Amino acid sequence: MVNGVECQPPHQVVIVGGGFGGLYAAKALGKVKNVSVTLIDKRNFHLFQPLLYQVATGTVSPADISSPLRSVLSESQNTRVLLGEVSDIDPDGQKVFMGEEVIAYDTLILATGAKHSYFGKDEWEKSAPGLKTVEDAIAMRRQIFSAFEAAEKETDPAKRQALLTFVIVGGGPTGVELAGAIAEIAYQTMRKDFRNIDTGETQVLLLEGLDRVLPPFAPQLSQEAEAALTKLGVTVRTNTLVTNIDNDIVTIKSGEETETIHAKTVLWAAGVKASPLGKIICERTPAECDRAGRVVVEADLSIPGYPNLFVIGDLAHYAHQTGKPLPGVAPVAMQEGQFVASLIKAKLNHKPLPQFKYRDYGSLAVIGQHAAVVDLGFAKLTGAVAWLFWLFVHIYFLIGFENKLVVMLQWLWNYFTRRRGARLITGMDVGVKNPVNQSVEYYQPVDNRTPLNV
Amino acid sequence: MVNGVECQPPHQVVIVGGGFGGLYAAKALGKVKNVSVTLIDKRNFHLFQPLLYQVATGTVSPADISSPLRSVLSESQNTRVLLGEVSDIDPDGQKVFMGEEVIAYDTLILATGAKHSYFGKDEWEKSAPGLKTVEDAIAMRRQIFSAFEAAEKETDPAKRQALLTFVIVGGGPTGVELAGAIAEIAYQTMRKDFRNIDTGETQVLLLEGLDRVLPPFAPQLSQEAEAALTKLGVTVRTNTLVTNIDNDIVTIKSGEETETIHAKTVLWAAGVKASPLGKIICERTPAECDRAGRVVVEADLSIPGYPNLFVIGDLAHYAHQTGKPLPGVAPVAMQEGQFVASLIKAKLNHKPLPQFKYRDYGSLAVIGQHAAVVDLGFAKLTGAVAWLFWLFVHIYFLIGFENKLVVMLQWLWNYFTRRRGARLITGMDVGVKNPVNQSVEYYQPVDNRTPLNV
Repeated sequence: MVNGVECQPPHQVVIVGGGFGGLYAAKALGKVKNVSVTLIDKRNFHLFQPLLYQVATGTVSPADISSPLRSVLSESQNTRVLLGEVSDIDPDGQKVFMGEEVIAYDTLILATGAKHSYFGKDEWEKSAPGLKTVEDAIAMRRQIFSAFEAAEKETDPAKRQALLTFVIVGGGPTGVELAGAIAEIAYQTMRKDFRNIDTGETQVLLLEGLDRVLPPFAPQLSQEAEAALTKLGVTVRTNTLVTNIDNDIVTIKSGEETETIHAKTVLWAAGVKASPLGKIICERTPAECDRAGRVVVEADLSIPGYPNLFVIGDLAHYAHQTGKPLPGVAPVAMQEGQFVASLIKAKLNHKPLPQFKYRDYGSLAVIGQHAAVVDLGFAKLTGAVAWLFWLFVHIYFLIGFENKLVVMLQWLWNYFTRRRGARLITGMDVGVKNPVNQSVEYYQPVDNRTPLNV
Repeated sequence: MVNGVECQPPHQVVIVGGGFGGLYAAKALGKVKNVSVTLIDKRNFHLFQPLLYQVATGTVSPADISSPLRSVLSESQNTRVLLGEVSDIDPDGQKVFMGEEVIAYDTLILATGAKHSYFGKDEWEKSAPGLKTVEDAIAMRRQIFSAFEAAEKETDPAKRQALLTFVIVGGGPTGVELAGAIAEIAYQTMRKDFRNIDTGETQVLLLEGLDRVLPPFAPQLSQEAEAALTKLGVTVRTNTLVTNIDNDIVTIKSGEETETIHAKTVLWAAGVKASPLGKIICERTPAECDRAGRVVVEADLSIPGYPNLFVIGDLAHYAHQTGKPLPGVAPVAMQEGQFVASLIKAKLNHKPLPQFKYRDYGSLAVIGQHAAVVDLGFAKLTGAVAWLFWLFVHIYFLIGFENKLVVMLQWLWNYFTRRRGARLITGMDVGVKNPVNQSVEYYQPVDNRTPLNV
């Protein structure tokens, strides 16, 4: 008792993961009295993942779409940031473990997201890298631009064509964005840069298992997107499944027909699986995990029987609203993070508890530097108007963290010049003698990630 | 004979290395008739090395100070760019080898530069990384920012102080620039970002073996630079030699006194040695190599007995002008590259041959975001005026390659906000559990460079 007011130790909130979900929760709790927040992440920066394909295709630099977590939270005096990896969780003892280090919590928010998944064909990863981390993007950038370099030196026409063939697996937003950007690189940006090859001979194939690209969008927008991609030079193949990827040969199946494509560069944009922390939760609590490893959460995003343990973002399977799980996109994670923060506040202040309801403001996908599709539900935009809309929405959210006006200027510069200044081939073992003869080592990503995607 | 004009095959110029020397030579030959140019580099981009310390300290991204070689030379229709590494040279047969690939030349220009040198103590490299490549800069950035992260988690006061101690070996421009930038990071940029440590307790030591920092500058400017560094919080120790670096302990000697410093981060800015192609030239021709591995060249930058073989830039030892070799700085390389191009042109057109004379326009070094020193010979600038001068000179040369106005805007933004957005810790094995417990692996650079620095 100090001056008649009961002195309580602050309520300890531990947030694991500094993506959209975790960071929005932390920001919403940053000024709350008698709450102490610990944000744990394996990386020292928040990554604006929706723009990662722009790093992979040489438009912007990793730092342009990243914000140091400490910077973003520097004004939140009740918040500390810890760099490290959560190895285990004890839901009953209310503790998380980082190796030997133990951190106790009153409330835990898990927001460790997802990584790409090969549907059990993990051996495809080395031939068909995915795009979830900065290192993934740098490796993909290296692979894309190295293929043109190797083609310039290749004298065998068949091998050269395989080097100039790019297969993108998965016709969701990431696949569409990658395919459009690679077509622009080949047919516009680098058209004058080579002497032995004509980059106009590049083939860009976008493969989608369902009957249209951008399946979550309205069918009319899928059609528009396919038309815009085709105009850019992308070959779109829907109803097409990949049955094998091996030794620069992609085997595909459309209906009953099987076909092989010789392609040196295969990029994976087809599926994700949840971070392994999901599995730990499903082992230690009554919660269930779905096939993608996501934790099925209650209507308030908590775990059955553990009202102080929340799972949000790509790691959560939340089906209370429409019967189908909410998609793994940034707006869902942001709203879930903000909701859990408001729920914690309400509980601490003994106020009525809020209900979670996801508000879908629409979907966006960009196809090229002149085209995008925007589905707002009540309105559908295409072409340059949609592209401008997309630009401003992304700038708006980037500015939410730190002033990234520079990014917009970079984009405008690229837009008018059709240049891509960030097409560095870096991070490989630069000791490799001649890329064309040693393409296997040359294409190997440097970084060895562990599955625990904190 | 076509229409009475004799048809000659084009004169084949091969340039090895796309730094300042090689690129300026290539650009100057880009529009010359009946000349065909092949530029060979291990990397697909030109790196503006004088600004590499800004990548290492989180101000700009690698792509901001790099230009794709193909972009820079896309208008030079007589020029092809080859990505690869020259493994051997046959000066008599007029051939260079890239592994099994053989490229014949009429004129060869070697411009493969230098890398950092540990004066025979190569075992220091792993404790005290240097700064020559993009990968070096990313590794250095990772090390600097990881040290603060580890300090935040460290409970042992002695270990924490070692994590907050930064030793920079070498008081030349790079050392001065690194020391100033790290002091700004600790005392300004990150002041509010941590909860357990006070980054104001950071120690930044700049060690110089001679009696003043920036030895190539006028003594008065060295004094000014030392005063500006001290004001920023850097401890400058001149007349101080490093005698050992081992296990986070730096042993130094000032006069007769020996002392040890516990520092987790030691950065090397003390010396360079020439690319190994120099040694090949000195074995295969009558040319001599100096102690730093540089090739002693003739007054026209050719090799004794080989008037069609030139060595320029950091790889060359050119002492015909002042009796001392020209310094390893960008203006020397640029002027040498342009001179050799004009010499080739004059020879082909049977015109009088030009004489090489290096014009020294002065030296610049930046100390912090408000201070620099500029030695123009006829005038000496310090403080903010010098900083602005430095800014405009660098912007001018950056723009020479590609419009990098964005970089200037980034700098201005950082200048006014004192932020550093590019302080990403990337490229490490992100599977490392807890940086503080496994600091050895954590600090290890990912990239394994070979000595052949093409």
